[in-house]
Amino acid sequence: MHPSIPSTALQLRSLVQADGRLQISLEPTPVPVPGPDEVLIQMQATPINPSDMGLLFGPADLSTVQVAGSAQRPVVTARIPERAMPGLAARLGHSMPVGNEGAGLVVAAGAAAAAQALLGRTVAVIGGAMYAQYRAMPAAQCLPLPAGTTAAQGASCFVNPLTALGMVETMKREGHTALVHTAAASNLGQMLNKVCQKDGIGLVNIVRKPEQAAVLREIGAPYVCDSSAPGFMADLTDALAATGATMAFDATGGGTLAGQILQCMESAINRTAKEYSRYGSAVHKQVYLYGHLDTRPTEIQRTFGMAWGVGGWLLFPFLEKIGGAASQALRDRVVAELKTTFASHYARTVSLAGALSADAIAFYGPRNTGAKVLIDPSM
Amino acid sequence: MHPSIPSTALQLRSLVQADGRLQISLEPTPVPVPGPDEVLIQMQATPINPSDMGLLFGPADLSTVQVAGSAQRPVVTARIPERAMPGLAARLGHSMPVGNEGAGLVVAAGAAAAAQALLGRTVAVIGGAMYAQYRAMPAAQCLPLPAGTTAAQGASCFVNPLTALGMVETMKREGHTALVHTAAASNLGQMLNKVCQKDGIGLVNIVRKPEQAAVLREIGAPYVCDSSAPGFMADLTDALAATGATMAFDATGGGTLAGQILQCMESAINRTAKEYSRYGSAVHKQVYLYGHLDTRPTEIQRTFGMAWGVGGWLLFPFLEKIGGAASQALRDRVVAELKTTFASHYARTVSLAGALSADAIAFYGPRNTGAKVLIDPSM
Repeated sequence: MHPSIPSTALQLRSLVQADGRLQISLEPTPVPVPGPDEVLIQMQATPINPSDMGLLFGPADLSTVQVAGSAQRPVVTARIPERAMPGLAARLGHSMPVGNEGAGLVVAAGAAAAAQALLGRTVAVIGGAMYAQYRAMPAAQCLPLPAGTTAAQGASCFVNPLTALGMVETMKREGHTALVHTAAASNLGQMLNKVCQKDGIGLVNIVRKPEQAAVLREIGAPYVCDSSAPGFMADLTDALAATGATMAFDATGGGTLAGQILQCMESAINRTAKEYSRYGSAVHKQVYLYGHLDTRPTEIQRTFGMAWGVGGWLLFPFLEKIGGAASQALRDRVVAELKTTFASHYARTVSLAGALSADAIAFYGPRNTGAKVLIDPSM
Repeated sequence: MHPSIPSTALQLRSLVQADGRLQISLEPTPVPVPGPDEVLIQMQATPINPSDMGLLFGPADLSTVQVAGSAQRPVVTARIPERAMPGLAARLGHSMPVGNEGAGLVVAAGAAAAAQALLGRTVAVIGGAMYAQYRAMPAAQCLPLPAGTTAAQGASCFVNPLTALGMVETMKREGHTALVHTAAASNLGQMLNKVCQKDGIGLVNIVRKPEQAAVLREIGAPYVCDSSAPGFMADLTDALAATGATMAFDATGGGTLAGQILQCMESAINRTAKEYSRYGSAVHKQVYLYGHLDTRPTEIQRTFGMAWGVGGWLLFPFLEKIGGAASQALRDRVVAELKTTFASHYARTVSLAGALSADAIAFYGPRNTGAKVLIDPSM
């Protein structure tokens, strides 16, 4: 191995202990020697996505966060509510690496030609354990970034871009023609607006605050509904009638929002209904819950007939379902539009240790949809 | 027309008035003269199915039922809660005939050969407005009952048998291998047990009372879980693990039951899981809500990963979706097994006027899943 590559390096780990304590720390871990078909990546940019929060914090109560340890190796602890512990049985006592995606420099490579070809290239990868100074990956799974693209620009190549495209693809495959998206001012939400604007697809954005509505109006979103406004249901129904959206992707998951969306969809459809049907309209209305920003139970008041569905939606099972060729087409589009449609913006860049400060956790924590943070493990 | 056929006859009507009053009455209505391709049926047997309740009573508060009028033409009134009125806008002031299915004697027929061929035959029909002394129907839509089958035996040919078969068919088409059914002691529930026993399909029955559990055990149901028992969740998980059921049909619709079923399904699946996945198992778990016995909101505590769905299920859209040939195959099976698998049992037979007595309404009302009533409009 190259002399400048250390034999051990830091990796971020999340551990749920039997006493109900969550511990996040940076653990010295042997730097892997790449196998023949593998490369070793010095990680330079890895985002904290909402989809990382589940493994990182679990259901811990973040108001109980305490930070100890040293400046270089802080140790975060937080309490997990007792009622959440049964669901964590399978990860109890297992120290788990975190970080879905990222990008960095290939600093070592196995003997295979495909691996050697990547030496010195900046690549984007997905596969977990990215919050680390070094990560080995099969060469075939690396996405070499075009010349002139930095690791920071390529760090979020997969999760948000493919999720936005996956939502649009799901919409098309299930026979809908326009979309609703909640927590719509998020990085993902802004990206989805760009995709829908480019592709001419109607998109109804739901946000919770006037300042989030402003963010979306600024990027040209024509339909923005604020769920904290008194006229929310009427606004939403108008937007649904205008776009014809009968499918929604909801990042909040809990509370009454999914049911409200279904009810407004039914009202919008019934504006043009000619006669009473006690089973409601025959138009299928679908809400997919892809996040859990609201951890309350999902409460559905069934006031919209029988043609409806609510369910979980997850990117990777979806990509598997549509098959290799279809998902490669989505990936190709991401690379082609990486600096335009799929450009990510970060509010802060922090080191691995910096990501474990109380201040940073409060900033990027699970409830703060707009503020995306990038970790640079080489800092 | 035959001299013994009157020119007007009684038809049951349900009317929602603008002041929030529901009125159910028997209205003298012209007896239709059958068109060339039609027959006139003297109705002799028409069941009160749970699926008739919605149109019959709407969301009226049945503790406010009052009966006035004469013995021959009683008039039932009940109050509708104010919050339910907006959902009824489309039927306000429209006097609506009721009764999904039934059977009777063909007493007149149009000139077409297919219509003439049915004269004097006992036929089963579906199509609404069956709570009436006479009903005209297209000959092509009549199901002539085999010789030796009475109108009472054929009255429930469609709704329950096709619903039971539709559930099994949905299970197969969506890739599941065993079923869960709630309110399982109902007429439909007992029928579904017979179908599953005959076809060798695992069926987990959920009931709310020990006496309902006893009813099912008596007909040989191997898996019966009583949601009022303290060990319900554990019992249900055991039954799900034993059968491998990952699809449920829930007649109650409201409350926490659908979510509990999903949670127990996930627990059953995870009994054999080898490693922790923060997104839950990859096995899709589905609950279809096909009824509203519990009018509370559906409350789903999302403790079972991301591979799940909850939605409405309705027989006729399903039959339409699978197409003519597939649904004809289901109908053919019903006729072939009408006196065995699909035999219906009625707790009482009443006249049209008898169906509008306070006593009868309390007996067959929407909350009483076991007690099925047959109306004989010729009584």
